[in-house]
Amino acid sequence: MSEKDSPAAPKPGTPPLKLPSYKKASRLTHPQNTVIPLGPYAIGGDEFVIMAGPCSVEADPQMLGTAWEVKIGGAHIIRGGAFKPRSSPYSFQGLAEEGLKMLSKARELTGLGIVTEVMDSSDVDLVESYADIIQVGARNSQNFSLLKRLSKCQKPILLKRGLMNTVDELLSSAEYILAGGNEQVILCERGIRTFEPSTRNTLDLSSILTIKEKSHLPVIVDPSHASGKAHYVAPLSRAALAVGADGLMIEVHCAPESALCDGEESIEPGQFRDLMVNLAELAPAFGRRISTLTPELLAQNQR
Amino acid sequence: MSEKDSPAAPKPGTPPLKLPSYKKASRLTHPQNTVIPLGPYAIGGDEFVIMAGPCSVEADPQMLGTAWEVKIGGAHIIRGGAFKPRSSPYSFQGLAEEGLKMLSKARELTGLGIVTEVMDSSDVDLVESYADIIQVGARNSQNFSLLKRLSKCQKPILLKRGLMNTVDELLSSAEYILAGGNEQVILCERGIRTFEPSTRNTLDLSSILTIKEKSHLPVIVDPSHASGKAHYVAPLSRAALAVGADGLMIEVHCAPESALCDGEESIEPGQFRDLMVNLAELAPAFGRRISTLTPELLAQNQR
Amino acid sequence: MSEKDSPAAPKPGTPPLKLPSYKKASRLTHPQNTVIPLGPYAIGGDEFVIMAGPCSVEADPQMLGTAWEVKIGGAHIIRGGAFKPRSSPYSFQGLAEEGLKMLSKARELTGLGIVTEVMDSSDVDLVESYADIIQVGARNSQNFSLLKRLSKCQKPILLKRGLMNTVDELLSSAEYILAGGNEQVILCERGIRTFEPSTRNTLDLSSILTIKEKSHLPVIVDPSHASGKAHYVAPLSRAALAVGADGLMIEVHCAPESALCDGEESIEPGQFRDLMVNLAELAPAFGRRISTLTPELLAQNQR
Amino acid sequence: MSEKDSPAAPKPGTPPLKLPSYKKASRLTHPQNTVIPLGPYAIGGDEFVIMAGPCSVEADPQMLGTAWEVKIGGAHIIRGGAFKPRSSPYSFQGLAEEGLKMLSKARELTGLGIVTEVMDSSDVDLVESYADIIQVGARNSQNFSLLKRLSKCQKPILLKRGLMNTVDELLSSAEYILAGGNEQVILCERGIRTFEPSTRNTLDLSSILTIKEKSHLPVIVDPSHASGKAHYVAPLSRAALAVGADGLMIEVHCAPESALCDGEESIEPGQFRDLMVNLAELAPAFGRRISTLTPELLAQNQR
Repeated sequence: MSEKDSPAAPKPGTPPLKLPSYKKASRLTHPQNTVIPLGPYAIGGDEFVIMAGPCSVEADPQMLGTAWEVKIGGAHIIRGGAFKPRSSPYSFQGLAEEGLKMLSKARELTGLGIVTEVMDSSDVDLVESYADIIQVGARNSQNFSLLKRLSKCQKPILLKRGLMNTVDELLSSAEYILAGGNEQVILCERGIRTFEPSTRNTLDLSSILTIKEKSHLPVIVDPSHASGKAHYVAPLSRAALAVGADGLMIEVHCAPESALCDGEESIEPGQFRDLMVNLAELAPAFGRRISTLTPELLAQNQR
Repeated sequence: MSEKDSPAAPKPGTPPLKLPSYKKASRLTHPQNTVIPLGPYAIGGDEFVIMAGPCSVEADPQMLGTAWEVKIGGAHIIRGGAFKPRSSPYSFQGLAEEGLKMLSKARELTGLGIVTEVMDSSDVDLVESYADIIQVGARNSQNFSLLKRLSKCQKPILLKRGLMNTVDELLSSAEYILAGGNEQVILCERGIRTFEPSTRNTLDLSSILTIKEKSHLPVIVDPSHASGKAHYVAPLSRAALAVGADGLMIEVHCAPESALCDGEESIEPGQFRDLMVNLAELAPAFGRRISTLTPELLAQNQR
Repeated sequence: MSEKDSPAAPKPGTPPLKLPSYKKASRLTHPQNTVIPLGPYAIGGDEFVIMAGPCSVEADPQMLGTAWEVKIGGAHIIRGGAFKPRSSPYSFQGLAEEGLKMLSKARELTGLGIVTEVMDSSDVDLVESYADIIQVGARNSQNFSLLKRLSKCQKPILLKRGLMNTVDELLSSAEYILAGGNEQVILCERGIRTFEPSTRNTLDLSSILTIKEKSHLPVIVDPSHASGKAHYVAPLSRAALAVGADGLMIEVHCAPESALCDGEESIEPGQFRDLMVNLAELAPAFGRRISTLTPELLAQNQR
Repeated sequence: MSEKDSPAAPKPGTPPLKLPSYKKASRLTHPQNTVIPLGPYAIGGDEFVIMAGPCSVEADPQMLGTAWEVKIGGAHIIRGGAFKPRSSPYSFQGLAEEGLKMLSKARELTGLGIVTEVMDSSDVDLVESYADIIQVGARNSQNFSLLKRLSKCQKPILLKRGLMNTVDELLSSAEYILAGGNEQVILCERGIRTFEPSTRNTLDLSSILTIKEKSHLPVIVDPSHASGKAHYVAPLSRAALAVGADGLMIEVHCAPESALCDGEESIEPGQFRDLMVNLAELAPAFGRRISTLTPELLAQNQR
């Protein structure tokens, strides 16, 4: 890949001359990519960052077991939800602070940072006290009160695209966080709602290109929620790397069939290791690397 | 219209036998229409209820002037936003408590109840202390933390359908409120997001039929936000009455061209009076009435 | 309803000044409504025109029985498909010329005109020799070769909106017919494809307003295909009348449960008669009439 | 990539046990991938097949110049439209047989096969007499009369997914061709219509996985029409390779700024050569090869 295609310098057609309403999120006011430190790594640069873990934190053995598996597999960050947005009030709603404590233990065990969702501005203090990255879910992507509150946090915010939001709306939501003073925003494409029923949502990989063209913020892809199908995760992850995403958020569960939430889209630890080996091998061809997979770990995980 | 078509008893095809996850919102567990008292009137019965007013509360003269105009025109409830969900952080965000106080004055002046939006669970106490009906906007239709908090309110909740939400998801969101103990939920169809660019959203009037078939909750239509075009409001209002909605939410502004928000979709007081006269004349043919338009007021407003 | 709201003179906001690419279909070049004679009636004026009949022509008794029923019910035109666009090659594809002959017999029996679909330019001569109105189905709405061929016909063309077509695209498709010399085009809204699964498609009644604003062509609504549910047909028909459509296309089958195609959306003759009585009573309030329902027929059909 | 991920043997989750209505297109009745010979190459196997050329055939110098450029760049097949489906009747409609003759000359000059679109069943004989692959455009994807006629052709058919068609509908359209006796069908994902305006359509790369899971037919991706943006073509092409597509259809024009059709999405010959070099280097990592790029040609095109 030639220099002009490198992830650090996307190649727009005719650059837009008019400043959009999301002026701080716009590449016009900030031509260089934003690079956000995440422990010993950073997102938005050459590192292809992997956030992995269960949909929801369920219990200590499940959380610690899965955390250790994704650490071995080469993840940079552990994901897991303690507050769960569920369509039905009768579905499992998450373990709240108890779940945050389990995530905290997982961090101690593995040394990896944790990303977890906050659903309400009144929980921001609590979640911020545990999380390394605070996630805003797709259904709260235009919860402007929450976004304003998060603009006052010191932690990076992972902002997911709403199911019906345009890229411009996503960047406007990011602007709420930036405008309030928090410049550490990571965007996440996780599929949009369309008429196609084969997948839970339609993963819009072109949006990565639009985001990179219009904005300087890093953007990752969540193939698990987008497709809702475990066996689609690997090929969609490869496509996300190929199109220029800065990383992935992947659901991994040590026992998907008994997951309290979204088990059908979670991959098993063995599948995660295979995928990570594959991505680490492919990454250099796309100007990326996965530093967590040291030569020793890579050799150990190759089969 | 024959008896079996009356709004109080919709005629389903084959009734669904399996109880859906929204069991309290389902007509299977509650065959009779829910009728919610609103001052001297009620919604969900024969009264065709009109909520009208400006998109946002801007200033005392604008709010009081418009309130008086909609009272004269025959509205049952005054609408107006003090907390405004705006895509951009740099757009007018509403006057917050100052706006609620203006709404309160409008209530004193006119004797009409007020409906206003809450965007965050931390503002629910404040909004409930002023509002007669608490509105949840389309972008918060799946803000489950907010819905849970509202389930503890004593006031009726007006729940708007999200731009990308199915009817089943809307009923599941209503279930959050019902499950927590607040049985006074009014639904609102306000258009869904599609590919058609002629209107801001696509008003889905079939959803009124689906809601009436699946649920006992009252449902109104917002033709202003759905179309985004002032001159579409009157014909879409007539269609909403014809299809079986329980009422309307309409934007009226005493000076649309100077509105701080959504002026292009607001109708003027004179247009509102004409529309109300027309609806009052049409209503009996659809098994409805508009009691606020007394014979005297009707005669006065007819031109 | 005041004069300026009459169907013959829609009330635009700010009129578009730039001539669109569909210049012959545009109201800017042809301010008066196009009124197309259909036997003793006409579409596009005060008459609310009803086209009714089975989805597909199946057999003589079915076709003649249903034709007679819709005649008695007050329809202006008989519909029935002899060429059927089916997603699967193994579904019933229609009776072709044999079906056209049955339609022809139905015309002789009832004195009503017939509308039937053509799917391919090579069948246009055949279909034109039988039909009074030639229908283009939703899946052929952008079959430009077929549209060009139809522009040379002497018969009116009923052009359905494609499931994914914008109003501007529909008018551009109409332009193909007008540009070739056939000025008798009737448009038909029949629902667009969205994410909502409760109805087969989402009926976009706002499109009637957009079409009336941008074009002079008459437009009807097909509530049967839009909803896919027989018990939605009556309320959606009332809404279509209320919003300003020029007529309806309704599926009626004398034995819906045994229909070879789309039985679940067909209403029975008794339901059709009830609906027609209801529409005839409502029509004057919307500036329309249904002349086929003479006082004698109305009295006979009222129950 | 491990064996079980190879393009020849996709890895479904739980295999569907019920035979779908598209039984001949289904992988259940034909577990092995269909491989279709295209001159010295074949599609559906390890070869990553590239079809490239202008949107429409415009003139001899343009067509021959571009043909030669795509040959040098490493394309397998030349594309170019002689019959153009255009929304407006006043847009350039293509050169018809004259265009087919130019394509034929381009074949003689380069030795490459040609793919070109047919829009109407009455033109199938003509187009088949010139084309090596006959294309069905997105707007004719459910033109069942045309599909039936094409089922009698001896040439492979390239069937594009309609803008609003589900994968199941695409496979049902393919079934029309297979059922009539023509088993050489190549599918093409070219974007679906959604609410997102940044790209002309939304490229649905997950559909490649669904097609590979449900069917044995080869499938390619058209990133040019999907995005409508020339500078998105290269990264989307890489993503298509990564996700498992069997090839690409790319618009290349020797002078995009003067193209009569879709110039803004066409890449220049130099960009095409760079992309092909990049794809040829990446292909082996995804179990593919591009044999047209011999070591000599590769060395010559590398810069």
